[in-house]
Amino acid sequence: MIEPQPKLSEAEFTHALRSIGEQKYHHRHPFHLLMHQGRLGRGQLQAWAFNRFYYQIHIPVKDSLILARSQDAEFRRAWRTRIEDQDGTDERPGGLARWIELVKATGIPAEQLARKGQVLPGVRYAVEEYLRLVSHGTLLQAVASSLTEMFASRLIALRLDRLREHYPWLAGALQYFEHRLTEAPRDADFALRWVLSQAETREQQEQAIAALSAKCDILWAQLDAIYFAYVEPGWPPFEAFHPREHSHAA
Amino acid sequence: MIEPQPKLSEAEFTHALRSIGEQKYHHRHPFHLLMHQGRLGRGQLQAWAFNRFYYQIHIPVKDSLILARSQDAEFRRAWRTRIEDQDGTDERPGGLARWIELVKATGIPAEQLARKGQVLPGVRYAVEEYLRLVSHGTLLQAVASSLTEMFASRLIALRLDRLREHYPWLAGALQYFEHRLTEAPRDADFALRWVLSQAETREQQEQAIAALSAKCDILWAQLDAIYFAYVEPGWPPFEAFHPREHSHAA
Repeated sequence: MIEPQPKLSEAEFTHALRSIGEQKYHHRHPFHLLMHQGRLGRGQLQAWAFNRFYYQIHIPVKDSLILARSQDAEFRRAWRTRIEDQDGTDERPGGLARWIELVKATGIPAEQLARKGQVLPGVRYAVEEYLRLVSHGTLLQAVASSLTEMFASRLIALRLDRLREHYPWLAGALQYFEHRLTEAPRDADFALRWVLSQAETREQQEQAIAALSAKCDILWAQLDAIYFAYVEPGWPPFEAFHPREHSHAA
Repeated sequence: MIEPQPKLSEAEFTHALRSIGEQKYHHRHPFHLLMHQGRLGRGQLQAWAFNRFYYQIHIPVKDSLILARSQDAEFRRAWRTRIEDQDGTDERPGGLARWIELVKATGIPAEQLARKGQVLPGVRYAVEEYLRLVSHGTLLQAVASSLTEMFASRLIALRLDRLREHYPWLAGALQYFEHRLTEAPRDADFALRWVLSQAETREQQEQAIAALSAKCDILWAQLDAIYFAYVEPGWPPFEAFHPREHSHAA
């Protein structure tokens, strides 16, 4: 008979979650490495900003799906700030408006963002998978999938440095990332505390770890699709976004 | 005021559907071109057979979802043969058993097919998108998405020739494709007649054309993911299938 695995201590469980990030978070993706080395052309940054916008507009959808699944008003109040951060309020613009500034700074008119048919199928499918995960998994899995934010601020701090260094023409449009430097750790802290407290069995702990791993796949697969279409081999599908200046890595 | 577009004649509608195939069906995908030129190594054929099996096992799922959506016993009787073809009956093996023979002939033990965690995320997401399309679109869209079979037999006839020529060690395990040479045209004929009769307005005709286009994206994106991981640049994700003999294009 197979012995049931003992529940992980809080330190072991936290370590297991962090290990997923070290292995699989997209800070290691070659597209980001090229970006940070200054080896992407303007067209490739356009393609990234354009396709990644599709992910961005689905973040509040994802957070609303999570909101709808909780019966706990305290949880919902905390989670709601994510939607406000991304969509903005009457008083202040949100992350989406800041991402649009980034897109425009790459040289794409904002109107082109409406052409969702130009989004890479691989990016669309990854976003669908994220919505499926938070809709059909347990609430614990949905929340655990957000824990990629534990790894976000280090990546974003590096990215801000490197974008300013290598692509100075983008430097005035990096407010999205500047805001994320404070939003992501706050959101990750709340989500980590919630996951640690809600995963009551080893099986639930393993489900949370698997959900975080699945979310890393979702981020990674988007960059694979972008790299494949716009870096190497470099063939965007039939209807996809074609950069105005489609220059390959220098 | 914008005039509503007139309904297409049957010939025009059929032509529009066929044009999608000429533009976007995966007979044009570079992975298939390399395959047919004999430029794939055994490891790359393993990766293709392994990942494509994941698509294959979801074909009866997809067909069952379509079956469940029809109230017409005549339609269901015709559609049911697709599930029998793939799953087999008590008397005869089906397409899945034949695909497993193909996988084994590439040098992968059949047991490895159970390791679904090794399937490329990009392939998994494309399969999910297919299930989503047939579940949440109209029944007309679900059936129209199957019309890629109009283009299948020409691709399969070519593939059989080229596989026998370039990869003679596979020649004894091509029964899957031999059966598809007769199954696909029969299924496509039924589906085309059904779509032509059911699309009563121009809007419905356009929805059917869009569904066929979306299905071409789903097939194409799977090969993009396989090409990206196993041909060029050639990096399978962390947990993905790693070929026993991972040789690059000759």
